Amino acid sequence: MIKRVDHVGIAVKSLDAIKKMYREVFNMEPHFEEVVEEQKVRVAGYKLGETNLEYLEPLDDSSPISGFLEKRGEGLHHIAWNVENIQDVLNRMKSQGLRLIDEEPRVGAEGKLIAFVHPKSMNGVLLELSQDV
Amino acid sequence: MIKRVDHVGIAVKSLDAIKKMYREVFNMEPHFEEVVEEQKVRVAGYKLGETNLEYLEPLDDSSPISGFLEKRGEGLHHIAWNVENIQDVLNRMKSQGLRLIDEEPRVGAEGKLIAFVHPKSMNGVLLELSQDV
Repeated sequence: MIKRVDHVGIAVKSLDAIKKMYREVFNMEPHFEEVVEEQKVRVAGYKLGETNLEYLEPLDDSSPISGFLEKRGEGLHHIAWNVENIQDVLNRMKSQGLRLIDEEPRVGAEGKLIAFVHPKSMNGVLLELSQDV
Repeated sequence: MIKRVDHVGIAVKSLDAIKKMYREVFNMEPHFEEVVEEQKVRVAGYKLGETNLEYLEPLDDSSPISGFLEKRGEGLHHIAWNVENIQDVLNRMKSQGLRLIDEEPRVGAEGKLIAFVHPKSMNGVLLELSQDV
């Protein structure tokens, strides 16, 4: 049902500092880098085995990541699972009374189906579900 | 150099609530459950692909997890990487001026070599390095 940890999202003020650190310490460049307009973030992803670490820098003050940085500072922001059948997982969660941010899957980066689950129902963890298409 | 995400640690008040949720929603039981006396925590680990989600419940008020829960509430606590050569990674980090919690590897659960890197040098993320033996 849950196949793997797809990625871990980390809120940062500056991707430049991250990229410098990975380059100097690990000799690593981002696996991908992109702007997600809908969330007003620039993302740099590093592939560690089957999981990406995704560093998220806000584009402006309207980004949800700006609010997070202001409240909590830099750090772990969310975790994403790759699941076999996202609609099935959402239905099971709903039937158990878990609070969903997205009741129906929507199309995210790379055309994947995604949905967010509220941290209140996941012990303080913002959870993203993701299904390959 | 970095092989994979070994685990993600999540601070919780009660493992019972977590285990109920995983059982009811995902029909999953913990892959392992153990007490780590040194950190004064009880751990329940769920295997998602090559990464474990490790839920950490404090045994008493002296646990570092108690302090975290008091300050931040439940949520993502740390991330652990599995690396090929932990001493090599520590040396590289040190030479780049990164702040280490453990300058030398020590023996952790399952006899693995582990060391922690300070969140101040990892953009707010508490990082555990781990090497299989």
